Amino acid sequence: MHPEVLEKCRQARKASSFLAGASTTLKNKALEKIALSLEKNKKEIIKANKLDLEDLESQEHYSEAFRDRLQLNEERILGMTEGLRNIAALEDPVGEVTRMWKRPNGLEIGQVRVPIGVIAIIYEARPNVTIDAGGLAMKAGNAVILRGGTEALNSNRALIRLVRHSLASLDLPADCVALIEDTDRRAAMDLMRANQYLDLLIPRGGPALIDTVIANSTVPVIQTGAGNCHTYIDCSADLDKAIAITVNAKIQRPGVCNALETLLVHRDIAPRFLPGILPVLSKLGVEIRGCSVTASYFEDVIPASEQDWKTEYLDLILAVKVVENLDQAVEHINVYGTGHSEAIVTDSYEHSRSFLARVDAAAVYVNASTRFTDGFAFGLGAEMGISTQKLHARGPMGLEALTTLKYLIYGSGQIRE
Amino acid sequence: MHPEVLEKCRQARKASSFLAGASTTLKNKALEKIALSLEKNKKEIIKANKLDLEDLESQEHYSEAFRDRLQLNEERILGMTEGLRNIAALEDPVGEVTRMWKRPNGLEIGQVRVPIGVIAIIYEARPNVTIDAGGLAMKAGNAVILRGGTEALNSNRALIRLVRHSLASLDLPADCVALIEDTDRRAAMDLMRANQYLDLLIPRGGPALIDTVIANSTVPVIQTGAGNCHTYIDCSADLDKAIAITVNAKIQRPGVCNALETLLVHRDIAPRFLPGILPVLSKLGVEIRGCSVTASYFEDVIPASEQDWKTEYLDLILAVKVVENLDQAVEHINVYGTGHSEAIVTDSYEHSRSFLARVDAAAVYVNASTRFTDGFAFGLGAEMGISTQKLHARGPMGLEALTTLKYLIYGSGQIRE
Repeated sequence: MHPEVLEKCRQARKASSFLAGASTTLKNKALEKIALSLEKNKKEIIKANKLDLEDLESQEHYSEAFRDRLQLNEERILGMTEGLRNIAALEDPVGEVTRMWKRPNGLEIGQVRVPIGVIAIIYEARPNVTIDAGGLAMKAGNAVILRGGTEALNSNRALIRLVRHSLASLDLPADCVALIEDTDRRAAMDLMRANQYLDLLIPRGGPALIDTVIANSTVPVIQTGAGNCHTYIDCSADLDKAIAITVNAKIQRPGVCNALETLLVHRDIAPRFLPGILPVLSKLGVEIRGCSVTASYFEDVIPASEQDWKTEYLDLILAVKVVENLDQAVEHINVYGTGHSEAIVTDSYEHSRSFLARVDAAAVYVNASTRFTDGFAFGLGAEMGISTQKLHARGPMGLEALTTLKYLIYGSGQIRE
Repeated sequence: MHPEVLEKCRQARKASSFLAGASTTLKNKALEKIALSLEKNKKEIIKANKLDLEDLESQEHYSEAFRDRLQLNEERILGMTEGLRNIAALEDPVGEVTRMWKRPNGLEIGQVRVPIGVIAIIYEARPNVTIDAGGLAMKAGNAVILRGGTEALNSNRALIRLVRHSLASLDLPADCVALIEDTDRRAAMDLMRANQYLDLLIPRGGPALIDTVIANSTVPVIQTGAGNCHTYIDCSADLDKAIAITVNAKIQRPGVCNALETLLVHRDIAPRFLPGILPVLSKLGVEIRGCSVTASYFEDVIPASEQDWKTEYLDLILAVKVVENLDQAVEHINVYGTGHSEAIVTDSYEHSRSFLARVDAAAVYVNASTRFTDGFAFGLGAEMGISTQKLHARGPMGLEALTTLKYLIYGSGQIRE
């Protein structure tokens, strides 16, 4: 195994036992200490970040959005420290006994919530993830190994140096948090196969990163996937709600995974709904790609192709399809959706129940915008990402998703007959 | 993709939506129907099984244990039908709302237990797994794709034909259960990478099978791993309990994953405990491999090597080590254990708490035999295997481990500000 990866995995494993037993008070102190350290050393952080930005700017091709995600400034550092303090304020999930029962032979069997152990996070050139994700993993009692995008190496080094220094000053093992500094692909590959040391690997980033991790990792992965989200306007929908929800889900923040991508409209409500909503969306800058029926209600519709039903635009583009009934809407969603967030707007009790039961997704809504799918809006107080797989955690992942359960069995000499 | 795998995956995906919405009554009827069908057609099953046994016997090398696991007879078919009826009697986990809360904006957010979807099971030449595992997966509302060992193909074909016929006779899709009949390695490989159709893959079998699946699968896997289980006799242990628990954990059924493999003994109790227990074990046919201190208490001790601390014997062999204190016992367990089942025998309140908190394993015991780690002994009513990974399910997996959660959000027109 790659020597840096091996060394840091070993150290993290060791540190994780200590952190798993650390009190909530000590973990919160560490988060506060890190926040203070970032505040005190913000100039150093910004200086390191400048090196990353200069390296980027010396390259021929980069997008402004990429540069923006890479950049740190005082405001963004403040955002990180606020994030750490919010995490410190959250209830510690570790130690909760979720249930306990007694067997006929007198054995008492319970399940207690414990840290997962060592979590690796592979992410792109967004230095804030270093602090946000690292802080969350630590609060849940996990050691964490970070492998950030190459372009953010100087920034990440500066941040991790401060984090490790803060931990050590509280007599916590600095190795609770480590950064893989070798940006070579082989280092990442070896990290993905370090089953002996890692309990979980979370990729955070775009589809290419996530696909690479799924294809290569032998360590268990939580997939935080794409959101090809639908809203279905049922025949019985309240028109005002339907318009408000559609507009909000599409344009409030089009670049995120819980934004609306395909609007499905019952054919009976289409004549009343589409002539109203389509010009509104168009005026707001949304490009409409619709089926032929949709096009009959508004002139400015680009014909939708099969590809449109599959696409997560993350942009001011909306696919629109008129469907025969609820069944066809559910079928379309279960075929083309990515299992993220799906909504129905309806005043029918029966249709609301049927949609909730039959749509296969992490979050299924009645009469609300899909934009609410995140850890903060759900009240989890934090978010490590939104899982679109079905194992372990599904939907927004808060602190609890970063823990596991352990069986505790209290006996008085029981043996098996 | 392999055509048979592709076709069966597609069909299973389709059938899974139907099964996910099936009532408990209908699922139980199906289980009963399958049980009746197995009873009625036991001659046909035994005939098919004979073909498998003849094929095996025509080979040069096979073990008697292998042949025994492959063989079906009336008694074993009765075991399968009893198993199906037990599964039918279990409470259906699907549909339970595990929690629900209200957000300040009026959104009500809940989590409901739903089937995982399509589960593939790769296993060895044990035809009973076809019925046991298939029945469990179905009761939890999942479609299931089975890939059993080559040597059991005729038996599995006969069983699956009866299962599918039973389902169809109740107007359930036969494709809820499918058998991959191509026993070529490529078929299994493609199954391990059918992420588009499968939600979960469970390998059931020995370490070689499990390692192959972990190394090659891109579908999420639940690892049912080895059990290198320890029992630690603390300085304050009650000697009678210590002897009874040690003997039971080692010899009651030495070939299973929750049996004792390494005994750790506090040095202060060693002079009172070891001279008593070692001759008893030896008389019961147990080979003792011990550290040098252990050897000073009994003449018939083979010196233990580093390899012994790592080995899951699954046999009448016991590694024994005298340790300085609780810390050393915990450290030994966390280094050499496989995270399965670990026990302390103690009368010290403080030591019991410390051991429970610090040992990192699926099941941690005080004053009881590790042999209790299974779904039936824990009261789960069934068992799909014992997970030694930390994601999703840890320890014995019952029906609940074969489900996932879905967020349901009830709104009244909420949009995101």
